Amino acid sequence: MFPLDEYKVRMNHTKQKMMEYGIEVLLVSNPSNMYYLTGYNAWSFYVHQILVVMIDEEQPIWIGREMDAHSAKVTTWLDENHIIPYPDEFVQSSIKHPMDFVANILIEIGQGSRKIGLEMDSFYFTAMCYERITTQLPDAEFRNYNTLVNWVRLIKSDLEVEYMRRAARILENAMTAAYETADVGVRENDVAAAITAAQIRGTAEYGGDYTSIVPMIPTSENTASPHLTWTDRRYVEGDYLTIEIAGAYKRYHTPMSRTMAIGHAPDKVTELSKVVQEGIETTLDAIQPGMTAEEVEAIWSRTIAKRGYYKESRLGYSIGLSYPPDWGEHTVSFRKGDKTILQPNMTFHLMPGIWLDNYGVEITESILITENGCETFADFPKPLYVKEANSSKTKQPF
Amino acid sequence: MFPLDEYKVRMNHTKQKMMEYGIEVLLVSNPSNMYYLTGYNAWSFYVHQILVVMIDEEQPIWIGREMDAHSAKVTTWLDENHIIPYPDEFVQSSIKHPMDFVANILIEIGQGSRKIGLEMDSFYFTAMCYERITTQLPDAEFRNYNTLVNWVRLIKSDLEVEYMRRAARILENAMTAAYETADVGVRENDVAAAITAAQIRGTAEYGGDYTSIVPMIPTSENTASPHLTWTDRRYVEGDYLTIEIAGAYKRYHTPMSRTMAIGHAPDKVTELSKVVQEGIETTLDAIQPGMTAEEVEAIWSRTIAKRGYYKESRLGYSIGLSYPPDWGEHTVSFRKGDKTILQPNMTFHLMPGIWLDNYGVEITESILITENGCETFADFPKPLYVKEANSSKTKQPF
Repeated sequence: MFPLDEYKVRMNHTKQKMMEYGIEVLLVSNPSNMYYLTGYNAWSFYVHQILVVMIDEEQPIWIGREMDAHSAKVTTWLDENHIIPYPDEFVQSSIKHPMDFVANILIEIGQGSRKIGLEMDSFYFTAMCYERITTQLPDAEFRNYNTLVNWVRLIKSDLEVEYMRRAARILENAMTAAYETADVGVRENDVAAAITAAQIRGTAEYGGDYTSIVPMIPTSENTASPHLTWTDRRYVEGDYLTIEIAGAYKRYHTPMSRTMAIGHAPDKVTELSKVVQEGIETTLDAIQPGMTAEEVEAIWSRTIAKRGYYKESRLGYSIGLSYPPDWGEHTVSFRKGDKTILQPNMTFHLMPGIWLDNYGVEITESILITENGCETFADFPKPLYVKEANSSKTKQPF
Repeated sequence: MFPLDEYKVRMNHTKQKMMEYGIEVLLVSNPSNMYYLTGYNAWSFYVHQILVVMIDEEQPIWIGREMDAHSAKVTTWLDENHIIPYPDEFVQSSIKHPMDFVANILIEIGQGSRKIGLEMDSFYFTAMCYERITTQLPDAEFRNYNTLVNWVRLIKSDLEVEYMRRAARILENAMTAAYETADVGVRENDVAAAITAAQIRGTAEYGGDYTSIVPMIPTSENTASPHLTWTDRRYVEGDYLTIEIAGAYKRYHTPMSRTMAIGHAPDKVTELSKVVQEGIETTLDAIQPGMTAEEVEAIWSRTIAKRGYYKESRLGYSIGLSYPPDWGEHTVSFRKGDKTILQPNMTFHLMPGIWLDNYGVEITESILITENGCETFADFPKPLYVKEANSSKTKQPF
């Protein structure tokens, strides 16, 4: 999927960090990191699978379920003898565990008593994985290097940026689909269906991929709950909704949120959306490479403070490729204490949502840090969108 | 969402098992189990959240991220003082961890030195969660009760069965969308878009929910890899594909697979599909309450063995409600050694896929065990479907 040279660079950067930290073997379970280093791409992460990166071996070893080994052959740059399947009896068994198998392989290939880095807080590396691997390898020395590969992913290659630009074209189509579909009498799920179809259809030139998070489109009072998805309730005049979605191209994501009202917007929503819009525009104008992540948050906080608002949660986070359940990279956060220095080709979801007791507003952007400032991936109007009621009644699927 | 009485029954069954196993506190991190016991339903499981079930308390306690506490108020039957938010600084921090917060709460409410059950191999209960909670509660006694609630979920209530029947209506619409869309010149992603839109649109009477797994629709040689999703390649005459999808209604799933050919099917695919079809029909006819799970698998294995075939992987698994990344319940598997006795209102995905070196066939069903045998949730023809090429060219979106 990427040129072999790009994978080699990624492997080298990973090994450099392993060397710095004194790790000889890194066990990668995060599907995003596995994809980043090898290209492995299948919906098989609901069973345990591990990538073994060894400091002194050119190719890592993929260990996964037997029926998925074929996916590894099809999607990765690894030689076939670097793909090791475990039998199906290890799947969701109360007796056998895939990490027992992994431990045995590590012993067989002479890696059983080394300094081993683990992604301790990675989804899919469960407590049981940890217990089994540490018990089975008593001579190894284990350490937590949870986001080692995540940090390697922080600065994107030009090809990765191009993938994210493509994701942004898809995102624009999906947000347009939301705007066109939501109306009085239409069901929330029909808007979600229109968004999802647009996400996967993509553009005429290239198809879309599934996004790591489904559309989150809470309505009216429920906009206070950013992570609600949808119901089959029909919209009524005066409803307002936050729409948080992404475009995805070959697992690369550009998320974005907008706030929309049907028929008319309550004054409180109009007012809050102006505050959020002023906040994001001021912040976007100010972002420069060389700034720290916490400085970005401070600009936003000062801007909304002038209007009497305060946001407890972080202002954004690093993005790029991802698998469910999250599209964040789990590295940089725009919040107090994060002193990461922004550099060109870093990419973030700038996430200025304000959620009050019984309503909220989100107007967010995926951004690319450039040599001179930043640019938004998507080109989509920011203001609160108020749609004339019943303007597209013919679009109702039922 | 469910009547309060149903939640009380679920809580009672859970506490009964806790009593049997000598656990006083159960920490539930599996989003499906959390939903089952409380109704909690939001896409927030990408940050840590925990349900604390106490043997001597009527209501459990939900602990999660501050911005998600509102979702807990909206979607659960819990009193507001049983919903405890943790501040945003605990989110994806390299210093603070949500389990530190959880441990402190447990101490505060006098549960810090009890016998605590953990879902050790549950997605989202990471190695780090385990390390932090056990370190912070040195006086507690920890034990693994990974699938305790999953086993409580095994026999469905009539209302749960009704939800699954609705999911099956949605599934039929989604599979129809796949059959109608796939054709020569159409892109794989456009078929995935049609499936997904149909899944979420649901029916005229009720909307669909997101499925825990996206459509898996590998083509031709790639049908040997069951968990590949899609690309934007255009189908050519003679392509064949396996389509594994589900319908979902309020998080309850009915999965199903079918195999389809475009223009014509290669002889090997036609032959293999007859074997699989004979295998599933024979098995469906034979299933009776009182049988064991391994006996079901044995019928299938004997049937296909007569034709010279062998399937390494399990024949199916228990299903019901679920969250990404899996729609299985992680309890019963149809495979050798599983001596679970089938009872009415158990529900399974009977999954007879055969994957050979460079192709595969899947014809599967979601089933309900009844008083006299079993019934399939969906009503959809089983034979290999061969579609005349270009029969629906007008359906191409581009």
